[in-house]
Amino acid sequence: MLDALKKAVCDANLELAASGVVIYTWGNVSGIDRDSGQMVIKPSGIPYQGMTPDDMVVVDVETGRRTEGKWKPSSDTPTHLALYRAFPEIGGITHTHSVHAVAFAQAGMDIPALGTTHADYFHGPVPCTRSLSREEVEGPYEENTGRVIIETVQARGQEVLAVPGVIVRNHGPFAWGCDAAESVYHAVVLETVAEMAWKTLWLNPESQLPDYILDRHYFRKHGANAYYGQK
Amino acid sequence: MLDALKKAVCDANLELAASGVVIYTWGNVSGIDRDSGQMVIKPSGIPYQGMTPDDMVVVDVETGRRTEGKWKPSSDTPTHLALYRAFPEIGGITHTHSVHAVAFAQAGMDIPALGTTHADYFHGPVPCTRSLSREEVEGPYEENTGRVIIETVQARGQEVLAVPGVIVRNHGPFAWGCDAAESVYHAVVLETVAEMAWKTLWLNPESQLPDYILDRHYFRKHGANAYYGQK
Amino acid sequence: MLDALKKAVCDANLELAASGVVIYTWGNVSGIDRDSGQMVIKPSGIPYQGMTPDDMVVVDVETGRRTEGKWKPSSDTPTHLALYRAFPEIGGITHTHSVHAVAFAQAGMDIPALGTTHADYFHGPVPCTRSLSREEVEGPYEENTGRVIIETVQARGQEVLAVPGVIVRNHGPFAWGCDAAESVYHAVVLETVAEMAWKTLWLNPESQLPDYILDRHYFRKHGANAYYGQK
Amino acid sequence: MLDALKKAVCDANLELAASGVVIYTWGNVSGIDRDSGQMVIKPSGIPYQGMTPDDMVVVDVETGRRTEGKWKPSSDTPTHLALYRAFPEIGGITHTHSVHAVAFAQAGMDIPALGTTHADYFHGPVPCTRSLSREEVEGPYEENTGRVIIETVQARGQEVLAVPGVIVRNHGPFAWGCDAAESVYHAVVLETVAEMAWKTLWLNPESQLPDYILDRHYFRKHGANAYYGQK
Repeated sequence: MLDALKKAVCDANLELAASGVVIYTWGNVSGIDRDSGQMVIKPSGIPYQGMTPDDMVVVDVETGRRTEGKWKPSSDTPTHLALYRAFPEIGGITHTHSVHAVAFAQAGMDIPALGTTHADYFHGPVPCTRSLSREEVEGPYEENTGRVIIETVQARGQEVLAVPGVIVRNHGPFAWGCDAAESVYHAVVLETVAEMAWKTLWLNPESQLPDYILDRHYFRKHGANAYYGQK
Repeated sequence: MLDALKKAVCDANLELAASGVVIYTWGNVSGIDRDSGQMVIKPSGIPYQGMTPDDMVVVDVETGRRTEGKWKPSSDTPTHLALYRAFPEIGGITHTHSVHAVAFAQAGMDIPALGTTHADYFHGPVPCTRSLSREEVEGPYEENTGRVIIETVQARGQEVLAVPGVIVRNHGPFAWGCDAAESVYHAVVLETVAEMAWKTLWLNPESQLPDYILDRHYFRKHGANAYYGQK
Repeated sequence: MLDALKKAVCDANLELAASGVVIYTWGNVSGIDRDSGQMVIKPSGIPYQGMTPDDMVVVDVETGRRTEGKWKPSSDTPTHLALYRAFPEIGGITHTHSVHAVAFAQAGMDIPALGTTHADYFHGPVPCTRSLSREEVEGPYEENTGRVIIETVQARGQEVLAVPGVIVRNHGPFAWGCDAAESVYHAVVLETVAEMAWKTLWLNPESQLPDYILDRHYFRKHGANAYYGQK
Repeated sequence: MLDALKKAVCDANLELAASGVVIYTWGNVSGIDRDSGQMVIKPSGIPYQGMTPDDMVVVDVETGRRTEGKWKPSSDTPTHLALYRAFPEIGGITHTHSVHAVAFAQAGMDIPALGTTHADYFHGPVPCTRSLSREEVEGPYEENTGRVIIETVQARGQEVLAVPGVIVRNHGPFAWGCDAAESVYHAVVLETVAEMAWKTLWLNPESQLPDYILDRHYFRKHGANAYYGQK
């Protein structure tokens, strides 16, 4: 079952490893089949090298139970499930510990939108969540991580794909997209714009991007009037 | 038609991808055939991997219309056309989102000439353009990007090849040369001198290069008395 | 004798070289066989390329004398021996000159625990030792380096594997683990969290990690209630 | 003639290219045969890829004239010749534009000795020369670059191999060694310790290395009582 999705999620995990933004087993990618209500995700703590579609784990989105697979799913599984439940538009999710995005997360700062590279993908800053409370951390921590992401996305009052990622305070980025491959793409772009922002702020802490440039670049790639690419 | 130019532009795009200064489909390279008034450019949003000369798009420089090719040309096509129309000395143009050059562009700062590495290629700072106005961005944006580059080049009162590149405010670098390959070369050098300048300014914000060193290094590689290389 | 350990230590040295955190012959990895009281370590100043298990050197942990091998052992051998003698829990040790860890060592600063990436491996800051005195440096220097590491580990009142590494003032990191391979793993992670901390402190020098997140992440991977990975 | 030296110098140039500290044709390596008074050096502006010993250029050290080879020698040839004439201990010279060393050169700062990585190779700071005057730059510039390096080395009152490199103000590093290969090695180490120093100074601008650690590390690798490596 779900052979195509298992292959797509496995490929996306390997693409993440090849992108250079993660080392060892850090990071994980999932994808969802909305029809059957099943999520496919990387197993926990298994090296990327030699990983095959058969290593992927299938989890029922409603119950959170493993329905297929020989391994335990990623320890971040409850976070992925919470996001899929809250946002029907999302088809894939990627979590990484990429260095510059983590630096913003550890500093407790949004990644500001300072240029067109950012605006091509994120229609505004990549927000940093609040800290989880002691109760949230000592309770169902991974599920609560999902909750605080959802709270952050909802607070900005935009559709979830308009800014396809957030950084979790003291932790790191979660990115998403229409499928697993696009979520990896957004995770790599997020790291790159974080590096650009980091280097920009050093040169000029007052750097800003006019709203009309943000809008122009975002909408030249997204929505009804997009004219980037071959569509 | 233009088979040699298509191959040269395709090779230059692949060289750009191999240089490590761009990821995914970011960046584009073009070349011009002045006799026929045709520009060859990378298609929009097509991955570098597997790209062949047949994927290149031919555009008439005067009318801006595609005259050959199966894909839509790069969305930055009107910027390239504006530069070719304004500067007959230019034979190739490269646009990138390389990290350190973007940092200067986002900070709204020229890349200062601080050493001989810079002076070997750029006879003065790499200028940062002014911001485009709301009207310029909401109108023919890519063409207006070309206009603001032209305005910036003309304002410095040097021939266009003396400083073969600028950075566009909040956006990133455009570099040029006598052909497509040289424009890639200048785009990679521009990124490297931006990185050097960024790291120098941190050590000593007052760093400066005496004019007579700038002149000596520039003219040892360029002009009638050049003595670098095998010419 | 000790063929399996020689192979494991040789592999771990090659893994260190492949990880990109060392250049040339910098860095060394050892492993111990507690039953026979023998340590296997990289030879001094021999390039990684072409290194085989036969190049490894065997040293008696109690006497410090070479018992097998055609080369002189790493000049840091007395440091490794001191650590094995002091900490029976350690099975492997890696020393590197990785750039960001060295920067903290040269600055005389602990690597602070600022996020979950750090907390997944190090249950608190990675401490920086005090400076060795003139007497300690002019005496048995490498052995005294071991002493000051031991002093630093003991001063923090945690078991030695809870924070599997320290940085030696003005020098660089020593990391350890249950075996040679794990010590390399911890040395690479140490460098990565040092880079993250360095970049975080620039954004926000007041960055901090709540203790309850440190605990949660550390114990989700370590101890009786760990639930990361496939165990 | 000089076949072995041509091969050694060609190999050293290729090793420099492979080290990642130079791009394109930046940087050059030479070696000297003291018996015949001939220097072998990289040709000017020729790419590293496909370079063979036959491409090397032979120059008479006394007269500065090319005695063999089909290409013009590196434009930095007069600098190399000046150093060989002044310092009979030197057997090879490498010039690069490596990023962090250039940053110090552009900032006009010595690379301070802050740790044991530095002390293992350089018995004190890597000095930055003074600026060349207008007269020196407009006169025989490359020869005068050699003069200012010699002046800088002599001013510090140590033998020339005790600190096997300097950085030229607003320009970049020259490193040397007992032969061409060792000069490349020192150029790569110089870049690495420059990166470490740059990152250290950001964390703690007051960082310092006690003299007795500098001495201990330098002399454990050099001189009569060295005990590093297999000698």
